[in-house]
Amino acid sequence: MDPAAPLKKFFATIDRDVIPHLSLDCVVFGFDGEALEVLLLRWRNLDRWSLPGGFVRWDESLDAAAQRVLRERTSLTQNLEQFHAFGALDRGGSEVRPAFAAMGVEVPEGHWLAGRIVSIGYLALVRFAEVRLNLGNVVEECRWWDVRARPPMTLDHDAIITRALDTLRIRARSFQLGGALMPEKFTMPELQRLYEAVLGHALDRRNFRKKVLELGIVEQLPEFRTGQRHRAANLYRARPED
Amino acid sequence: MDPAAPLKKFFATIDRDVIPHLSLDCVVFGFDGEALEVLLLRWRNLDRWSLPGGFVRWDESLDAAAQRVLRERTSLTQNLEQFHAFGALDRGGSEVRPAFAAMGVEVPEGHWLAGRIVSIGYLALVRFAEVRLNLGNVVEECRWWDVRARPPMTLDHDAIITRALDTLRIRARSFQLGGALMPEKFTMPELQRLYEAVLGHALDRRNFRKKVLELGIVEQLPEFRTGQRHRAANLYRARPED
Repeated sequence: MDPAAPLKKFFATIDRDVIPHLSLDCVVFGFDGEALEVLLLRWRNLDRWSLPGGFVRWDESLDAAAQRVLRERTSLTQNLEQFHAFGALDRGGSEVRPAFAAMGVEVPEGHWLAGRIVSIGYLALVRFAEVRLNLGNVVEECRWWDVRARPPMTLDHDAIITRALDTLRIRARSFQLGGALMPEKFTMPELQRLYEAVLGHALDRRNFRKKVLELGIVEQLPEFRTGQRHRAANLYRARPED
Repeated sequence: MDPAAPLKKFFATIDRDVIPHLSLDCVVFGFDGEALEVLLLRWRNLDRWSLPGGFVRWDESLDAAAQRVLRERTSLTQNLEQFHAFGALDRGGSEVRPAFAAMGVEVPEGHWLAGRIVSIGYLALVRFAEVRLNLGNVVEECRWWDVRARPPMTLDHDAIITRALDTLRIRARSFQLGGALMPEKFTMPELQRLYEAVLGHALDRRNFRKKVLELGIVEQLPEFRTGQRHRAANLYRARPED
């Protein structure tokens, strides 16, 4: 089968199926226990990386479209959070046609895909271990990258990640990351490492613990984790959101 | 002159001039010293009210389009803040054609203006006293409304205001409203009234003062305001943003 066939099929009905000049990009964050990671993919024949993204079908809301993109790529069914719409003058345009061409699809000159595209940015905080990656037909690689060491990105995707990170950091500064990035049960040092990975700097252990308990963002469990090198550590879970 | 002439002229070239299926709506907040107010307008021959809004020209960014809408309506030249994109399935559609028809412009069936429209929400915090309202040709009324007593609104504009208010309240809870809604110099009770108007409930005077000074969000001026009924009150100004 022509590897570009699914893309060609998609392209043949794009004007009937999706809202023109509009796309969405999903910044999917995971935490591997050490570093904050972001899910990126590389389309066939391209050397730059992209955020998982897509278009908005006429019969789905923006939120539903973002959920579909996340589900298709990670098998996760969860809500995402819209954080910003990107609509600079030079968004889209010249970079899109060569990208489609590299994948075997000619976008006609004058088509909206070759023009300006406004993209709605969504972010998802996901449990690292629960993600099942799907490549689909036109993606050559899809993997997690440490947010501190990202590869060269297409379009303004690097700026979109930076903005999503800003959103996350504002939340971390008021201790409102929630539990979506943590495994179900965790120790206090593990939670601290998440906050440090998001904020990008070390935190004082005692102050962190005090603040977290004061704000009541976690619940202490009657369980301990025992390791070889450490004494038994209390386990916590995120307090369910109201 | 046909009062619909400017609208007809706008409509004649709309497909050449603006991004289809996309609009923006501006939630302009002002503070009159007592209540938080929002700027609303009523188009000719309609009995529901609308947010000031518009479309995005090909040659302007989203942010620039929002600035233009604000400037046209209020004569203010300042930045707005994007807070959310509204893209429900039933946005636009059936309500738009009758509205244009009431103003004397027939939108052809099948035109994108009669279909789904995604709207980017912007909010502006403005100095009440500096606004100079412009009606333009097709607006019959444009005035401030107390956010607690809003009139019936077109489309989902009421929900857009609610969401903008949520954004503002989150900021007020962390004492980050900034100075954009206050006159240049103000007393501590005046600042407290703003926070109470945004949050919708009374605050303790001592705690408010303590928190505001602790966080350093205002600078005390070597000036006082003297009134007849009250003792002289210290004047403050908002600390310039970093």
